[in-house]
Amino acid sequence: MNKPPIFKRLCLIGIGLIGSSIALRAKRDGLAETIVVSTRRKETMDRARELNLGDVYTDKVSEAVKNCDCIILCIPVGAYAAIGERMAEHLSPGCIISDVGSVKRSVIEQLKPHLPENVHLIPGHPIAGTEYSGPDAGFSTLFDERWCLLTPAENSDPKAIDRISSFWKALGSKVDVMGADHHDRVLAVTSHIPHLIAYNIVGTASDLEEITESEVIKFSASGFRDFTRIAASDPVMWRDVFLHNKDAVLEMLGRFSEDLSRLQRAVRWGDGDLLFEHFTKTRDIRRGIIDAGQEIDKPNFGRDVTED
Amino acid sequence: MNKPPIFKRLCLIGIGLIGSSIALRAKRDGLAETIVVSTRRKETMDRARELNLGDVYTDKVSEAVKNCDCIILCIPVGAYAAIGERMAEHLSPGCIISDVGSVKRSVIEQLKPHLPENVHLIPGHPIAGTEYSGPDAGFSTLFDERWCLLTPAENSDPKAIDRISSFWKALGSKVDVMGADHHDRVLAVTSHIPHLIAYNIVGTASDLEEITESEVIKFSASGFRDFTRIAASDPVMWRDVFLHNKDAVLEMLGRFSEDLSRLQRAVRWGDGDLLFEHFTKTRDIRRGIIDAGQEIDKPNFGRDVTED
Repeated sequence: MNKPPIFKRLCLIGIGLIGSSIALRAKRDGLAETIVVSTRRKETMDRARELNLGDVYTDKVSEAVKNCDCIILCIPVGAYAAIGERMAEHLSPGCIISDVGSVKRSVIEQLKPHLPENVHLIPGHPIAGTEYSGPDAGFSTLFDERWCLLTPAENSDPKAIDRISSFWKALGSKVDVMGADHHDRVLAVTSHIPHLIAYNIVGTASDLEEITESEVIKFSASGFRDFTRIAASDPVMWRDVFLHNKDAVLEMLGRFSEDLSRLQRAVRWGDGDLLFEHFTKTRDIRRGIIDAGQEIDKPNFGRDVTED
Repeated sequence: MNKPPIFKRLCLIGIGLIGSSIALRAKRDGLAETIVVSTRRKETMDRARELNLGDVYTDKVSEAVKNCDCIILCIPVGAYAAIGERMAEHLSPGCIISDVGSVKRSVIEQLKPHLPENVHLIPGHPIAGTEYSGPDAGFSTLFDERWCLLTPAENSDPKAIDRISSFWKALGSKVDVMGADHHDRVLAVTSHIPHLIAYNIVGTASDLEEITESEVIKFSASGFRDFTRIAASDPVMWRDVFLHNKDAVLEMLGRFSEDLSRLQRAVRWGDGDLLFEHFTKTRDIRRGIIDAGQEIDKPNFGRDVTED
């Protein structure tokens, strides 16, 4: 790559699936002169070093952020306020503070009070991931063709927005800018509720008295196994998502339950027309997702179809 | 293949995803001397002929079943009683009557009254499929390593059970035998409820006032798109499943909703410990499914991870 690096000194706080994927792509394509990796657990730090994810490693946030022109928090959203407080005094003027958290209003509320006036808070959320976590789970192409949403705080500097936006594009993403509250409502329905439901049904299935766990596992290919993938996602990350997007989650859950009652009633009363009509409508959305390049165009996600 | 065919004359009533997959494998491996394909719609029949799925084609069920030693119904379960009535008089003594429907008690109740004493009713359910339907969707390896459940009616002839069982094994399946009621309860939780929930949330998402369908599609990679795959399944088939497994579906739905209320309450009251504990427990089930060979051992079902 002949392009100059976008950042001189990029700090990644947290080096799990997302942090390590940013590091791998930034290194591969020379997007930052220096990458500082900061993480709390010694085991994770050692592994990050072995994987050669950064140039500088430190478990001290106050050290890590010094002289950086961009800091990206890649940790569960429940930890932001504490990190914000610890880094506040050590930030360079003009530094971009961003993140990859799945909720955005809470991020602004947690960080804003701690930050000096002369830095740029531009939260971000790459719509990308897998059910695996930790520094070994990352890969440099994770963000390719996926959307990254930026939710800049009010009165953010357009130049700073452009800069972090060009960084995400260089990571492979398409970028969209929206308000934090709108983000939280959209993601409540496209992500948070699906996760809560998946976690829930996997729990329901494993609690049945007369059906063994082995039966649930054996016959999972009938639909259930798709839910178990989502329900294998990182528990700490997801606990924090629900605690920090409470209002939107509860509202969308209310709508989900109302709609489910309608289908439940149709089952009870044998209303086949209602069921058929509903089941027909939902096919189009799938087609739209495939056409938008957000899904593979193969049966069963292409996973177990061996054509012959 | 040097083995003799398992059936002399196999009749497939219905030639969609499952019927065509049986036909392709049976042809490939010589599992039946003659395959009779019967379907109602002319368009489907023409396509089945073009795809060379059978040896004999007829839209008359009374013709199709004559002289057959095995008949497999591969149609939505709502149509069984009518088909049972139409074929009853034309069955050969000793013939095996089976099917591939997702519910089993109703199948027995619909068919049994019509069938003569001298045939063998051994309903079956291959736990295999994709979200695609129709004769073009089939492929000969669909059943490989998947379970097929047989739920023989009381007093079934063990030899007939062995014969249909060896047929499914030849199609690539592993075979298990269980009672129809137990089947319907297990599948309610591993299949029917997951489908109802997926259909439901896709509906909820497309009904939101302030969130556009385009946003739902763009940001679907955050979890939602997994649900849309299931919600793209055949509407007629699934309508019939819910109408014909009402009791088990309503009971499992009751349990699901109770459990969801518990998680909802934890979100409302900020009970992070409860959420964390629940989200941790569900990871093990996923591991079990992968270890049992019922799921691919790759992030994101292996669909969009391009390692480099």
